[in-house]
Amino acid sequence: MPPQYAPSLRSRLAPLLLFLQTGFIIIFAFYTEIERNGNADDFSKCYPEFQDVNVIVILGFGFLGTFLVRHGFSGSGFNLLVAAMATQWALILNGVESLYYRGRLRIDLRSLIVAEMCTASALISIGAVLGKTNPVHLILIGLLEVSGFILNKWLLQLILNTQPLISIMMLHIFGSLFGLMLTGTLYRKGSERRFEKEKFDTKMGLFSMLGTVFLWMFWPSFNSVLVDDQTPGRKLGAVCSTYLALAVSAVTAAAVSVLSNPKGKLNLIHLQSCILAGGVAVGVSMSAVRHPWEAMIIGFAAAIISSIGFQYLKIHMLLAFQCHDTCAILSSHALPGVLGWLAHLVLQIKDSDDHTVAIRFAVFHICSLLITIALSVTLGILTGLLIRLKFWRPPQYKNCFDDQAFWEFSHLAVRK
Amino acid sequence: MPPQYAPSLRSRLAPLLLFLQTGFIIIFAFYTEIERNGNADDFSKCYPEFQDVNVIVILGFGFLGTFLVRHGFSGSGFNLLVAAMATQWALILNGVESLYYRGRLRIDLRSLIVAEMCTASALISIGAVLGKTNPVHLILIGLLEVSGFILNKWLLQLILNTQPLISIMMLHIFGSLFGLMLTGTLYRKGSERRFEKEKFDTKMGLFSMLGTVFLWMFWPSFNSVLVDDQTPGRKLGAVCSTYLALAVSAVTAAAVSVLSNPKGKLNLIHLQSCILAGGVAVGVSMSAVRHPWEAMIIGFAAAIISSIGFQYLKIHMLLAFQCHDTCAILSSHALPGVLGWLAHLVLQIKDSDDHTVAIRFAVFHICSLLITIALSVTLGILTGLLIRLKFWRPPQYKNCFDDQAFWEFSHLAVRK
Amino acid sequence: MPPQYAPSLRSRLAPLLLFLQTGFIIIFAFYTEIERNGNADDFSKCYPEFQDVNVIVILGFGFLGTFLVRHGFSGSGFNLLVAAMATQWALILNGVESLYYRGRLRIDLRSLIVAEMCTASALISIGAVLGKTNPVHLILIGLLEVSGFILNKWLLQLILNTQPLISIMMLHIFGSLFGLMLTGTLYRKGSERRFEKEKFDTKMGLFSMLGTVFLWMFWPSFNSVLVDDQTPGRKLGAVCSTYLALAVSAVTAAAVSVLSNPKGKLNLIHLQSCILAGGVAVGVSMSAVRHPWEAMIIGFAAAIISSIGFQYLKIHMLLAFQCHDTCAILSSHALPGVLGWLAHLVLQIKDSDDHTVAIRFAVFHICSLLITIALSVTLGILTGLLIRLKFWRPPQYKNCFDDQAFWEFSHLAVRK
Repeated sequence: MPPQYAPSLRSRLAPLLLFLQTGFIIIFAFYTEIERNGNADDFSKCYPEFQDVNVIVILGFGFLGTFLVRHGFSGSGFNLLVAAMATQWALILNGVESLYYRGRLRIDLRSLIVAEMCTASALISIGAVLGKTNPVHLILIGLLEVSGFILNKWLLQLILNTQPLISIMMLHIFGSLFGLMLTGTLYRKGSERRFEKEKFDTKMGLFSMLGTVFLWMFWPSFNSVLVDDQTPGRKLGAVCSTYLALAVSAVTAAAVSVLSNPKGKLNLIHLQSCILAGGVAVGVSMSAVRHPWEAMIIGFAAAIISSIGFQYLKIHMLLAFQCHDTCAILSSHALPGVLGWLAHLVLQIKDSDDHTVAIRFAVFHICSLLITIALSVTLGILTGLLIRLKFWRPPQYKNCFDDQAFWEFSHLAVRK
Repeated sequence: MPPQYAPSLRSRLAPLLLFLQTGFIIIFAFYTEIERNGNADDFSKCYPEFQDVNVIVILGFGFLGTFLVRHGFSGSGFNLLVAAMATQWALILNGVESLYYRGRLRIDLRSLIVAEMCTASALISIGAVLGKTNPVHLILIGLLEVSGFILNKWLLQLILNTQPLISIMMLHIFGSLFGLMLTGTLYRKGSERRFEKEKFDTKMGLFSMLGTVFLWMFWPSFNSVLVDDQTPGRKLGAVCSTYLALAVSAVTAAAVSVLSNPKGKLNLIHLQSCILAGGVAVGVSMSAVRHPWEAMIIGFAAAIISSIGFQYLKIHMLLAFQCHDTCAILSSHALPGVLGWLAHLVLQIKDSDDHTVAIRFAVFHICSLLITIALSVTLGILTGLLIRLKFWRPPQYKNCFDDQAFWEFSHLAVRK
Repeated sequence: MPPQYAPSLRSRLAPLLLFLQTGFIIIFAFYTEIERNGNADDFSKCYPEFQDVNVIVILGFGFLGTFLVRHGFSGSGFNLLVAAMATQWALILNGVESLYYRGRLRIDLRSLIVAEMCTASALISIGAVLGKTNPVHLILIGLLEVSGFILNKWLLQLILNTQPLISIMMLHIFGSLFGLMLTGTLYRKGSERRFEKEKFDTKMGLFSMLGTVFLWMFWPSFNSVLVDDQTPGRKLGAVCSTYLALAVSAVTAAAVSVLSNPKGKLNLIHLQSCILAGGVAVGVSMSAVRHPWEAMIIGFAAAIISSIGFQYLKIHMLLAFQCHDTCAILSSHALPGVLGWLAHLVLQIKDSDDHTVAIRFAVFHICSLLITIALSVTLGILTGLLIRLKFWRPPQYKNCFDDQAFWEFSHLAVRK
C-alpha cells in the first residue's frame, strides 16, 4: 500500500530537510569564512586528494549500495542526500573548537576532507540498515552518527592525546559498531526469514561492482590523505602499502570465496565485501606500518577474517543476535578494523626499544579502542531507540528493499 | 521502417564527418603548434583540472543522456562524437585572434580546457533535442552552437571588455536558450502527446544517475578551473563555494521534489535535473561570490527555482510554446543561469562603495545578458531553420527516442 | 553441467592463488623497501598520473570486457584478479636488476606505474581468450605474459639500448600478438560457428561503453606518464597529441562504421574497438611525434585500419587461421600498434638530417620490432600449449561465455 507512505515522507522529510538546511546556512553565514592565507601550491597538492575522497564518499559508497534488485535508486540517491547533509554538519562540528578560540570557523580543503571522512563513517553505519528504513531515518542516523564520531575523536584527543590520523581512522570501527547496534535495536519479528525483495541480479551486481572498483582504486588516497608529507616518503609509503594490501586482499578473498563455497564457485557479493578488507585494516594501522610486506600480511589476514565473517558470522548474527546486516558491515569494516587496531599494537610494540614506552603505548591504545567501542555501542543503541518511534513512520515489512515506497515510477516512466 | 534511414546516414553522416575531419587536420597542420615554453609545474597543476573537465564533458554529459530506455547508445555515443568534433572546432576558433597577431595558434592545456567548456555549452543545447534528431543534425548543431558561443564571448570582450571567466560562464544561459529556440523551431505536430518511447526504466535511471554523480563531484573543478590562482584563496573559495552550493541544492531539490509530488514521493529524473542547479548558478556568479554562505543561499534559491521549473514550467513550455525539452535544460541550466547572473549583479552592487561604479557595473552586466540572449535566440532559430530541411532526413515520428534507427542491433547481437 | 566444474576451481584456483600470494609476500618481505628519499613535490606530481593509469587498468579494461550478456561478472571480476596478481609479479621482475646491484628492490610510484603498464599488456592478451578460459588459465596467462613482456623489455634494452619509453610502449604489439597466438593454439573444433552465448544486450553495451569512455578520457595520461618532464613542453605535447589523435579516431571510426555497414548504421562494439586506435598508435610513436597534426594523421590512419580490420579481418582470422578473437585485439591493438611503429620510423627518418643516423635508427627500429614479434609469438604459442593441458580443466564448449560456470547465482540471489 504505497499511498499510505506518501504523507509520511511529505510531512516528515520535506520539513526536516528544509529546517536543517536553513539552519546550516544560518550557521555558515554567521560563523564561517574561507581560509585565505593558503598558498596555491598547497591547493594544487590537496585538490586531487580531495577529489579522490569525494569520489569514494559519493560514488563508491553510493554505488556499492545499489546491488539490491529493487533498491538501486534508494541506494545511490539516499547516499548522496545523507552525504550532502552530514558533510555540512561535520564541517560545523569539527570547527566548534576553532570557533571557540578564534571566533571563526575556517573552511579549507583539509577541513572538507576531514568532514567527508566523518561522513564516510556515517555511510558505513547506514549500510547495516539499508532497505529497512526510510530517508528520514537515514538522515537522522547520518547526523547523529557524525556527531557521535566527532565526539569520540574529541574525547580521544582530550583524554589520550591521540593524533587525528589515528582517531579519524577509527571511523571503520566506530561506524560499523554503531550500525550493528542500530540494526539490532531496530530488529523486527520475521526478519530471520529472508526479505522477499532482498535479491540482486546481474546488472545490479555490475553497478555494485562499479562502486567497489572505485573504492578499490581510490582507497590509497583515502588512507594517505591525512598522512603529513613533511617526513619524506611517509605519504608514498602509505600509498604503496595500501595498494599492495588491497591487491593481496583481492587475491586472498577470491581464494577463500572458492574454498568456502560448496560448489567451488566465486560469490560476487562476497568478493565485493572482502576485497577492501586489506585497505580498511591498513588504514587503521597506518601510522605503524613501516614496510610494504607488513601491509601485505595485514591485507592477507584481513581478507581471511573478513571472508570467514561474511560466510559464517553473518547468518549467526541474524539468528543469535537478531542483527540483520544488509551490507555485511561486520565483515567488511568491523572485523578488519579491529584487526588493523591489533596490528598497530603489535607493530608499535615490536618497533619500540623501551619496555616502558611500549607498555604505555599499549595502555593508551587499548583505552582508545575501549572508549570508541563504548561510545559507538551506547550511541548506536540510543539512536536505534529514537529511530524506532512510530512517529517517523517506518516502511512496512513488505515494502522493505523496494524503491517504490519512496520513488515515483508511474509518472517517471515518461519524462514530463 | 528502419531500412529507409540507412541511406540517410550513409550518404550524409560519413561524408560530413570525413570532410570536416580532414579539414580540421589541414588547419591544424598549417596553423597550430604546441606551446613549448610552459614549465613543468604549471603542467602538473593544470593537468588534473583538465581531466576533471574532460570527465564532465565526456562522461558526465554523456551518461546523463542515457536515461531514455531505448536511447542509451545514442545518448552516450553521439555525445562523444559531438564532443570530439566540437572541441577541435573550438580550439581553432578560439585561436583565430592569436593566429591573426602571431601567425600561429598555440595549443596548451588552458586552450584545451576553454575549448571543452565551449563544447559543454553545445552539449547543453543538444540536451533539448536529444532523441528527436539524427547524428548529422547533432554535429551541425554542435559546430554552429560552438561558433555562436565563441562569437558571443568575443563580442562581450570587444564591446564590454568582459573577462573570459564571466563570458565563458555564460555558457549555461547561451547553451540553454540556443537549445530551447532550436527545439521550438523543430517542433512537429503531435509532440504535445508523449512520444511512445520517451520512457525510462530502473537500470537506465542508474546509468543516468552515474553521469549525474560525476557531474556533481567534479563541478567544483568546472567552476574553479578558470579562476586565476594569483590572489591567494580565490581558487579555494571557488571550490568550497561550489561544493557547498551543490550540497545545499541536492538537499533542497529533494525537499521540493517530495513537497510537489502528489504522493509525497521522490522523482529521480527531477533530482538529476535539479541537484546541479546550485553549481550552475554559483558558476555564473563566481567572480562576485566572496563567502560560502552567499553560495549556499544561491544554491538554495537555484534548487527551488529549478525544481519549480521542472515540475510546472516544462509542460507549459510544451503546450503553450510548442517547445519539447527532452533533458529539461530550461530548469537545469537556463533558470539557474539567469539566477546566477542576478546574484552576481546584487552581490557586486552590495560590495561596491561607490554609486557610480555600481551603476556602471549594472549597465555593463545587463548589456552582457542582453547580448547573450539576443545572439543565442537568433542563432538558435537560424540553426533550427537550417536543421529543419528535409535534406538531412530527420527521423520519423515513430522512430524518435529509438536507438534502432541509428545503431545496428541484429548483427551486434553477436560480436563477429 | 556446472557442478562438474566446481572441483576444478576449488582444487586448482584456491591453492594456486594462495601459493602465489604467499610467495609474493615472502619475496616482498625479504627484498623490497619503499623509496624514502623522494621529495613531496615529486609525489604530488606523480600521484594523479598513477591514479589515471590505475583507472585505465582496473576500471577501463575491466568494464570494456563486460559487453557479453552473460559474462559481465567474469569480465570485470577476473580482470581485477589478474591485475592484482600481475602487478605484484611485475613489480618483482622489474626490480630484479636493482636487486642484483643494490641488494634491494625499491618501490615508488614510478615502479608501480611501470608495473601497471606491464599488467596492461597482459590484460590485452586476455582480451583474445575471454569467455573461453577459466580463471586459473587467466592467472597463468597473466603471469607468463608479464614475464615475457619484461624479458622483451630487458632484451631490447640490452641488445639495442632502447629507451624504456619506447620498449614499454611496445606493450600493444607484444600483448596482442601474444594473445592472438594463444587463442590460435587454444582453438577448438566448432568455434567457427558462433558461440551460443557470445551476445550482448543494451545494458551490457552501456557498461562496456563506460569502460571505453574511461579509457578514452585517461589515455592521454597513459601515453604521457613515462615522458620525462625535463624538456619543457614534451609532456604537454604528449598529452595534446594523444587527445587530438583520440578525437580524430573517434570521428573517423564513426564514419567508417557507417560506411562499411550495409544498412548505414553505427555499430557500438565496432566503435568501442576503434575509437582508441589513435591513442594506441600515437602511444607507440610517442617519442617521434613533434606536432599535433602528425598525431592527428596517425589517429586518422589508425582508425581506418582498425575499422577495416574489425569489419573484414576478424572473420577471416577465425575461418582461415582458426583464431577466435573475443575482444578484437587484432584490430584494436595489433594493427594500430604496428602502424604507430611505422609512423615512428617515418617521422624519425624525416626529422634526421644525416643519412647514416637515419639508416642506423631504421635498423635498430626494425630489429626491435622483429625481436618483439619473435618473442611474443614464441611465448604465446608456448603458453597456449601449457594452457591446453586437461589438467587445468577448461570450460566445456557449451559453458563458454557463461558466468554460471564460475560464479554462484542461486545463493547469491539473496545476500545472506
